[in-house]
Amino acid sequence: MIEQDTLAKAVFDKMMEKDYCSQWMGIEPIILKEGHCKLKMKVKKDMLNGYGILHGGIAYTLADSAFAFASNSYGRIAVSINGSMIYSKSAVEDEILYAEAKALNLTHKTADFDVNVMNEAGEVYYHFRGTVYRKSKSVIDPITTMT
Amino acid sequence: MIEQDTLAKAVFDKMMEKDYCSQWMGIEPIILKEGHCKLKMKVKKDMLNGYGILHGGIAYTLADSAFAFASNSYGRIAVSINGSMIYSKSAVEDEILYAEAKALNLTHKTADFDVNVMNEAGEVYYHFRGTVYRKSKSVIDPITTMT
Amino acid sequence: MIEQDTLAKAVFDKMMEKDYCSQWMGIEPIILKEGHCKLKMKVKKDMLNGYGILHGGIAYTLADSAFAFASNSYGRIAVSINGSMIYSKSAVEDEILYAEAKALNLTHKTADFDVNVMNEAGEVYYHFRGTVYRKSKSVIDPITTMT
Amino acid sequence: MIEQDTLAKAVFDKMMEKDYCSQWMGIEPIILKEGHCKLKMKVKKDMLNGYGILHGGIAYTLADSAFAFASNSYGRIAVSINGSMIYSKSAVEDEILYAEAKALNLTHKTADFDVNVMNEAGEVYYHFRGTVYRKSKSVIDPITTMT
Repeated sequence: MIEQDTLAKAVFDKMMEKDYCSQWMGIEPIILKEGHCKLKMKVKKDMLNGYGILHGGIAYTLADSAFAFASNSYGRIAVSINGSMIYSKSAVEDEILYAEAKALNLTHKTADFDVNVMNEAGEVYYHFRGTVYRKSKSVIDPITTMT
Repeated sequence: MIEQDTLAKAVFDKMMEKDYCSQWMGIEPIILKEGHCKLKMKVKKDMLNGYGILHGGIAYTLADSAFAFASNSYGRIAVSINGSMIYSKSAVEDEILYAEAKALNLTHKTADFDVNVMNEAGEVYYHFRGTVYRKSKSVIDPITTMT
Repeated sequence: MIEQDTLAKAVFDKMMEKDYCSQWMGIEPIILKEGHCKLKMKVKKDMLNGYGILHGGIAYTLADSAFAFASNSYGRIAVSINGSMIYSKSAVEDEILYAEAKALNLTHKTADFDVNVMNEAGEVYYHFRGTVYRKSKSVIDPITTMT
Repeated sequence: MIEQDTLAKAVFDKMMEKDYCSQWMGIEPIILKEGHCKLKMKVKKDMLNGYGILHGGIAYTLADSAFAFASNSYGRIAVSINGSMIYSKSAVEDEILYAEAKALNLTHKTADFDVNVMNEAGEVYYHFRGTVYRKSKSVIDPITTMT
């Protein structure tokens, strides 16, 4: 069902264990591969802002989680140093959203990812872009596969 | 206790009524003035990420709420079109954070704000910057005071 | 040779007349269509920084010009309100670069564009993203075709 | 005349030697200190865009140069990985601009800087923010003072 490879899945499981925020969001993995993560989430009432639409910050949080799983999927700890988001359309309560993170640029020490947050039809509502610093330390210890 | 002016406070109250996300975060207003908002929040377990620290997305959400109240405080509806955040330090569970939004640039149709998210000692952990599009429509209807 | 449509070409010609900076850069149009612009430029010695590579600011300026032509191509004056750039690879003297701007999001009052700056092989060196505010006034006056 | 310290000045001199772009812009140093750089520049005709104002890209280039000198001022090579700019006001031909870069956040491996580009009265026209990756290698070799 889930498209995945072994290391990316192991990293996701290890991180999700204590990622209480992603648990609160109710995210489900759809794709967990090296440098590529797709998540699914349903917009809940607690995610709405004063105008009755999805709080931009939660759209960002969903994208940021996909970004975290994708950038850590190589096995090395990746720490976000910044992120940005453009809002194109607003999501409403009970809407299903998908966040898909893909590497834009990967060097030994830093990496940039784009994350599109879209509806079921693939229409992009939010465009996220973020940068990580890549540590030498592995997410899962001991680990052998490293990039 | 709260530093506030009448219109900014009315806008905050009107928006908070249905801002279930800011309610979930447990934010408290400290300053509610024209173009200037300061909020307080305690980091909860449901806000942590897989590395046991505050999820960057929730730091962004807190900043985004301060940004929303500050940019709507003039009385006209302000819609976020983008935001970005730089992460300097990480907050942990039970830590108290303050988000302070101030106008960087205000024109008739758009405005930019900086939001610093800091600890009790005023040390900035997260630097947010965002842009709104300013509608003609007022937040509170009928309203007389408009910018 | 140049892929173009009438209005986008007219807007480009009108803007280029006094765009001394794009003239200094020596840009050439490759694609001039509605919401889509591709430019070509050769890296000159005056564009290098202290490390002997293309100054990031000039890569940004090239992208910003493509962004300006693309966002004004609908016929209405579009004013940049912000821009950002990620640096993946460095260009060197005499290298040929292409900047291709495409609309990411277009509303009545604002629009966002992505601009990829790449080498002849299509490898992306610089990723630009920017936002415009769209005025009602037309670039060329009198004009009939408006979006 | 110039506020400066020894290392920051040595780094500036070494970088400027081959920084043909900053030479083309005609920049002059005002402050050259650790983590702090202020430059002066006069807007030239070749810097104007199609609307007769300073090309946003050149405002960015000026800020980016101040950012480069400030982030390299510690003695270690600092490589820009991204930058962003908000446009508040437009500069015109012959106007004098100042770009002042200050560290927002400095860690062992990365750093963030804010650069304000302003007129003689100190009014901020352009707000730049950028991130560098900090190498171990020194700008000037051999060098003894390192951060």
